[in-house]
Amino acid sequence: VAGEFDIIRRYFAPLAGPEGLGLLDDAACIPARPNHDTIITKDVLVACSHFFENDEAEDIAFKAISVNVSDLVAKGADPKHYFVGLALPSAIEETWLAGFSNGLKKAQDRYGIVLAGGDTVKTGGPITVSVTAIGYVPQGEMVTRKDAKIGDHIYVTGDLGASACGLKAIQGGKKADVSLLERYYRPKAQLSFAPVLREFASAAADVSDGLLADVGHVCMASNVGAAIEVDALPISAAVASFLTEHNIGRDITWSGGDDYEIVFTVRPDNVVALDLFMAENKLKATKIGTVNSENGVELIDRKGNLVQISKTGYQHF
Amino acid sequence: VAGEFDIIRRYFAPLAGPEGLGLLDDAACIPARPNHDTIITKDVLVACSHFFENDEAEDIAFKAISVNVSDLVAKGADPKHYFVGLALPSAIEETWLAGFSNGLKKAQDRYGIVLAGGDTVKTGGPITVSVTAIGYVPQGEMVTRKDAKIGDHIYVTGDLGASACGLKAIQGGKKADVSLLERYYRPKAQLSFAPVLREFASAAADVSDGLLADVGHVCMASNVGAAIEVDALPISAAVASFLTEHNIGRDITWSGGDDYEIVFTVRPDNVVALDLFMAENKLKATKIGTVNSENGVELIDRKGNLVQISKTGYQHF
Repeated sequence: VAGEFDIIRRYFAPLAGPEGLGLLDDAACIPARPNHDTIITKDVLVACSHFFENDEAEDIAFKAISVNVSDLVAKGADPKHYFVGLALPSAIEETWLAGFSNGLKKAQDRYGIVLAGGDTVKTGGPITVSVTAIGYVPQGEMVTRKDAKIGDHIYVTGDLGASACGLKAIQGGKKADVSLLERYYRPKAQLSFAPVLREFASAAADVSDGLLADVGHVCMASNVGAAIEVDALPISAAVASFLTEHNIGRDITWSGGDDYEIVFTVRPDNVVALDLFMAENKLKATKIGTVNSENGVELIDRKGNLVQISKTGYQHF
Repeated sequence: VAGEFDIIRRYFAPLAGPEGLGLLDDAACIPARPNHDTIITKDVLVACSHFFENDEAEDIAFKAISVNVSDLVAKGADPKHYFVGLALPSAIEETWLAGFSNGLKKAQDRYGIVLAGGDTVKTGGPITVSVTAIGYVPQGEMVTRKDAKIGDHIYVTGDLGASACGLKAIQGGKKADVSLLERYYRPKAQLSFAPVLREFASAAADVSDGLLADVGHVCMASNVGAAIEVDALPISAAVASFLTEHNIGRDITWSGGDDYEIVFTVRPDNVVALDLFMAENKLKATKIGTVNSENGVELIDRKGNLVQISKTGYQHF
């Protein structure tokens, strides 16, 4: 392929906002946004671990941005800028770069963000994509993981397990509805929930490691426990069919990663207003449990009995 | 090694500032800094390309931070926060993580910065370190690459070629002064020059790819040319001895990378004030050339004759 600077000029500079200074400098300049806090997140994706080396470059780019935007949304932040660090094998082709650039563009259009900078280097290893994403909340309104309180209701947006089913289908060569594959290859961050969380949530996290694991992160940071009702967990018709058809246990819906839904807690006296707001704005989130004083996260059935959990979610190392 | 969350708790959380929220969230919250612009840079370092896999973890960490701080300094920005994305082989040892954490701590202490967040993932490839560093300038005072003008004087801080000589010594098993090895393994960013650049520089870049290449980046962004005087290029006594002893050409001082000095341009009517300021504050930068209307960067000797250049600097791909 062309040199490093040609790559930047051709595939990245057209995506840059004014803060990126045409990508001619090694840094971005972001003007102060008075009365706002800046929320910054950074996620690294590595081929063979977060995606397959032969996945479409467009999908890899879109997913890398979605994963980071999802983290911002979970803080109640409106995403605005992002940086991309790319480590690429030297044999990378122009078509790959063009596809990657297209994927970034589609993510930009969907999330209303612009490229502000980055770095492109060679690696002897797998494709590695490091994204830093930046968003804003009105001062003091960031939603953290640490303010869930006993008695809070627990909600999750959308539905669970679709991405994990998509992955299982891909790995096992199983037939699956296209919606499941789409959720794995091109997950969408729940952008429209950022203002909802700012208004109604006491704590939140995105569902990336697996529902129970991510509820666990909130509980740990808030020093509380949680009871999750197994029968309340929302799954799509496509997921239900896939599980039945391939005789796969439902645990994939609470331990499978990469959902990029948002799990959040709400004070009891906010619940009515939240439900009303969601109905008015055609947003879907389901109550799935309650914050309690126990240690850790429990899964319970209709009768309040414990459901055995073999695996809560994904951990590196 | 311990799990992902143990790693964060043990080796990274102790380095975090208040913006990092104890690293319990997936994002940092940075309060607005009124009347300041936020300067953000991101550099990715990959084993075998930017450092050797067996380099001390402490050196790798220190270098990764220095490289990014150097980019901020070149914009006239005072560094404040940084994020680290780490892709590590699964066989990584606790001692490596402890060393890496120590290196980050030493860089923090030197540069007055704190960790704000990051991500740690597994890779099947080489150790990959992605750093995002954040600094501030008073509103509108960022020093870019694009405002060099014909007639500006060109300065470079410190001295050139030490890191490239250190690398040559390591690769060739050659004897070298410890200062050369130190410059390669543990380069220092020119922190004290950030306010100098804001006050006196019209444009600047750090010397990371090689002096002529980096002057070239400034010229390209500013749409000017430059004449660099070969005999004015500052080199240390250790570099001079190393070149003589091993019969290595002086071109390494203008094409070798990783110097992390700053090359900057100054309007002619600012030169006297700059020289005075540097003398008062015991800072060293040397005039090495002049901005002109030519195309590209020329190296000239005492008589104004062109010096042939075989290589200007490092490019990925």
